[in-house]
Amino acid sequence: MKSLIHEKINQAVSILNEKDTDLWMIFARESSVNHDPAMDIVVGTNCTWQSAFMINRNGDTTAIVGSLEVPNMTTVGTYKNVEGYLKSVKELLLAYLQKHNPKKIAINFSKNANLADGLTYGLYLNLLDYLAGTDFPSRFISSEEIVAALRGRKSDSEVSNITAAIEVTEKIYNELTGFMKPGMSEKDVAAFILKRIADHGLETAWEVDHCPAVYTGPETAGAHSGPTDRKIEKGHIINTDFGVKVNGYCSDMQRTWYVLRDGETTAPPQVQKGFDVIKQSIRNAFAGMKPGVPGCEIDDLARNYITSNGYAEYQHGLGHQVGRAVHDGGAGLFPRWERYGNTPFLPLEPGHVFTIEPRLFVEGHGVVTVEEMVNVTADGCRWLSHPQEELWYIKG
Amino acid sequence: MKSLIHEKINQAVSILNEKDTDLWMIFARESSVNHDPAMDIVVGTNCTWQSAFMINRNGDTTAIVGSLEVPNMTTVGTYKNVEGYLKSVKELLLAYLQKHNPKKIAINFSKNANLADGLTYGLYLNLLDYLAGTDFPSRFISSEEIVAALRGRKSDSEVSNITAAIEVTEKIYNELTGFMKPGMSEKDVAAFILKRIADHGLETAWEVDHCPAVYTGPETAGAHSGPTDRKIEKGHIINTDFGVKVNGYCSDMQRTWYVLRDGETTAPPQVQKGFDVIKQSIRNAFAGMKPGVPGCEIDDLARNYITSNGYAEYQHGLGHQVGRAVHDGGAGLFPRWERYGNTPFLPLEPGHVFTIEPRLFVEGHGVVTVEEMVNVTADGCRWLSHPQEELWYIKG
Repeated sequence: MKSLIHEKINQAVSILNEKDTDLWMIFARESSVNHDPAMDIVVGTNCTWQSAFMINRNGDTTAIVGSLEVPNMTTVGTYKNVEGYLKSVKELLLAYLQKHNPKKIAINFSKNANLADGLTYGLYLNLLDYLAGTDFPSRFISSEEIVAALRGRKSDSEVSNITAAIEVTEKIYNELTGFMKPGMSEKDVAAFILKRIADHGLETAWEVDHCPAVYTGPETAGAHSGPTDRKIEKGHIINTDFGVKVNGYCSDMQRTWYVLRDGETTAPPQVQKGFDVIKQSIRNAFAGMKPGVPGCEIDDLARNYITSNGYAEYQHGLGHQVGRAVHDGGAGLFPRWERYGNTPFLPLEPGHVFTIEPRLFVEGHGVVTVEEMVNVTADGCRWLSHPQEELWYIKG
Repeated sequence: MKSLIHEKINQAVSILNEKDTDLWMIFARESSVNHDPAMDIVVGTNCTWQSAFMINRNGDTTAIVGSLEVPNMTTVGTYKNVEGYLKSVKELLLAYLQKHNPKKIAINFSKNANLADGLTYGLYLNLLDYLAGTDFPSRFISSEEIVAALRGRKSDSEVSNITAAIEVTEKIYNELTGFMKPGMSEKDVAAFILKRIADHGLETAWEVDHCPAVYTGPETAGAHSGPTDRKIEKGHIINTDFGVKVNGYCSDMQRTWYVLRDGETTAPPQVQKGFDVIKQSIRNAFAGMKPGVPGCEIDDLARNYITSNGYAEYQHGLGHQVGRAVHDGGAGLFPRWERYGNTPFLPLEPGHVFTIEPRLFVEGHGVVTVEEMVNVTADGCRWLSHPQEELWYIKG
């Protein structure tokens, strides 16, 4: 834990220099309740009182915390300097800024990226009060570019953790093919997956109320919620979506099965076509992924292929980054929709880990959706998951 | 869960009318990561896309969420109207505000109370963008008074849950007296407590790295971190601090023991005096607690009693509210220090649940700290915990 935090703090210092930013300040309070996801990456513990975590481009790291929290922060050991206050953070904060006089100060807010947006508005107003009469607020910029680079550019040890999470996920998917049968409910399938995750001593990659997600049959077209009592039937398409965490790093994968009807040895042509189109749309996106390309152009590759085959477009982005959070990093393989802010336009970078997860609906059968995981390399990308090459079958 | 959320939403509608506020809007995104604690109380699920949860003084409740999240929000069933959008929350948000035309809109930010401060600064800037050209932002006020009243004024079912959590905590404290022995480490004691909490099928009230906290001996004077390998010795004062959650509601209690030395049948006078002063300071605070009194005056009662007996003042507030969060509500029994904002000055109200937890140090022995839990009534207050009446002994 501590060594991974130090690795990321050192990377943050390089990124500050690359982005010509003097200081990254995370300002927080009660962070176990009002969680700032940046603290998971470069602090490694929580704070109760108002606290400032400073990473300076010169390599200095200083935590200004409540006096009762100095021992914990010192034990955690991720910051070189730990300063404690009793009545107000103001004096130590001002003293630090006056001493180091940073010209550009990245702070923890962002319109575009929730992972860089830990500073709450009320706490921001307090920060302005503390700095009243100084010109430090005029030097504030969003830390979103720093957080995006830091979370996106995975180190080898981060990619190893993600790969280990994928391996467990794939193992459980293989077992699932033998387990699922007509008559079982979505909840039965989810319980099996959760049991196997627990057997591995792991936790789910996201909240257990919809991890795993399990959908069987044609009535699940618009579903986006937890597993139900709906039963697997012959002729259904089944799909599931889950991930696990290994050392804090997530996997996130989907697979699709068809439940053979009596007398069938393969899926009906319209189901097979649905799978083939999803598979090829993923291959098209994969082929286009390389550093420098904005994510929206990758989303185009899959989306246009699917619509040109006569299907409705999927109602979400093609893929997102994965890391400590299941939705991680800045850039996404997203369409140019307002709710995504600037993230569809950010370029892919080496080290990014993405999902690719298009979706389409086959009338009368269900939803085909496959989710793979890939890692952007110096000149392209590589599979982290073993891609689903064929539609998988459940025998009736 | 759903009925408790409905109970609190109905209470929120009354509070909106009491405070002459037309609308309470919680604006959020990716709330499983950027957690808004108000959503635990009046939403009951998380959102991924930018979402607005509206509680209107006329009783209307409307959730505006991403289209893929409509089924989940409908299943959760806490809001009468659920509206879904695909590309941007803007149009539905504007349509709602234009239709209802609220004059005073409480939104989820607060300088004073982190529990009312879920709106991040970046997301707030997005909200301003969506409402550009309208005068709705000029109608914004902090929802802190609403959240404070809603979280603070506990219903009977909320107090029952807290009382159940206290009962388990007291049971484990009684067992601990028989368990602890010289030579055991703080970690051994913590492991015992965690095992017993798990035996009850419960989880800790706060993060397991410092719940329980266990401190033994004179070197723990300034400690505020997790249990260590430090060993219990004869002549030590031991104190522990933990709580559990029952149906989402917390307990938070501390107890103090003295480890008898060979030949001792009672504690040395200076240890006994330390305990007596803590006990009396709690009784003084208890006697002063009633609706209308600001918390800082209660803190005075305990703090001044302790310093008038020659001890240094404790470096924290006397007590905090407890509820779904272990640090809950608005008003606190806090000193008038800048970091507490306006919360020391807010009046106690019937239904509030508080801890009372003063602390002092006995040179050469350790920290005396006892934490009781009380419930403010119509004209005073009552114990929820069974107060520690005597210093407890560990035999060597």
